[in-house]
Amino acid sequence: MEKISIDRNAFLYPMPVVLVGTKSSGQVNFLTVAWVSRVNYNPPLIAVALGKTHFSSAGIKECGEFSVCVPGKDLLEKVDCCGLVSGKRVDKSGLFDVFYGELGCAPMISGCPLCMECRLIETVDLPTNNLFIGEILSAWTEERHLTDGKPDVRKMEPLTLTMPDNRYWSVGETIGRAWHDGKGLLPRLKGKKT
Amino acid sequence: MEKISIDRNAFLYPMPVVLVGTKSSGQVNFLTVAWVSRVNYNPPLIAVALGKTHFSSAGIKECGEFSVCVPGKDLLEKVDCCGLVSGKRVDKSGLFDVFYGELGCAPMISGCPLCMECRLIETVDLPTNNLFIGEILSAWTEERHLTDGKPDVRKMEPLTLTMPDNRYWSVGETIGRAWHDGKGLLPRLKGKKT
Repeated sequence: MEKISIDRNAFLYPMPVVLVGTKSSGQVNFLTVAWVSRVNYNPPLIAVALGKTHFSSAGIKECGEFSVCVPGKDLLEKVDCCGLVSGKRVDKSGLFDVFYGELGCAPMISGCPLCMECRLIETVDLPTNNLFIGEILSAWTEERHLTDGKPDVRKMEPLTLTMPDNRYWSVGETIGRAWHDGKGLLPRLKGKKT
Repeated sequence: MEKISIDRNAFLYPMPVVLVGTKSSGQVNFLTVAWVSRVNYNPPLIAVALGKTHFSSAGIKECGEFSVCVPGKDLLEKVDCCGLVSGKRVDKSGLFDVFYGELGCAPMISGCPLCMECRLIETVDLPTNNLFIGEILSAWTEERHLTDGKPDVRKMEPLTLTMPDNRYWSVGETIGRAWHDGKGLLPRLKGKKT
């Protein structure tokens, strides 16, 4: 099939959706973010990309702390709302029951199946965004979201996002085992002379 | 429900899965990566977190270019295989039909519904990983993956990954419209005094 070039402002399919929790001048705020990724295994680091002018960016710069909360699909309306309006204009904290772990500026959401509290370790200055890299100090869940002691995506029911069609999607069926299902192809690969 | 603290090495649910294409000493290589995110809108930047000792990291440092390819689930076995073995030991390029856009060190995979070719603009040095931030110069697809000129996740059929249970998942049903479904909650938010 013929390859065609499309808008270079292309996206990943699908993107995970999280709520980033911050405190700015004492105000708890939550921002919907899909530009988020783990970036280092040990210590566990996570990066979130936020617009430089966002209220949440000011909070992270002020406090050096933030949270990353993974919402379930029962929170879809509230998740979307937190991406529609700035904490500069309204107080979004009343949408959620908030709890804290060890950090005072990393508010977390009781209704989210997984929350991570993070201490900022590096800020990467990009053209319009800041990439905030945080060390995950603690991760919080509830027994009902676990299977064999591990978070179970079927119980958490997280959201994913696609752009530019701007749709939320659930997670579908399990279709394979990672670091396993490709083993049958290994004999086909040619070894290199060393 | 009572919150419990789990292993702080927590993950996002689910993570997108891509193949990162590089060239090292002339050898085309593809590495399976789930730690990837867009990080800036304009110019379009994307970040991939790779182990510092990975063959692909050497390739990106050598050339200053890489690709990010979004595979469909028909490639699951090959995608998994590219995460099982290093390009230092074997030549993985024969698994795929490779094509190029404008960059000589950003090999892309014809069988992937979406590929982005990237020029490295910044390398963030983390404890065990490098976070490579690239500008997307071009994005490539085929007409059959588009609806109304935009990539359609239902046609692309991408994979997602969860850790530490190490499972691949398909994308499920559409469950909402982003920047839309939360509008009904806006009147509930208290405005701030300015």
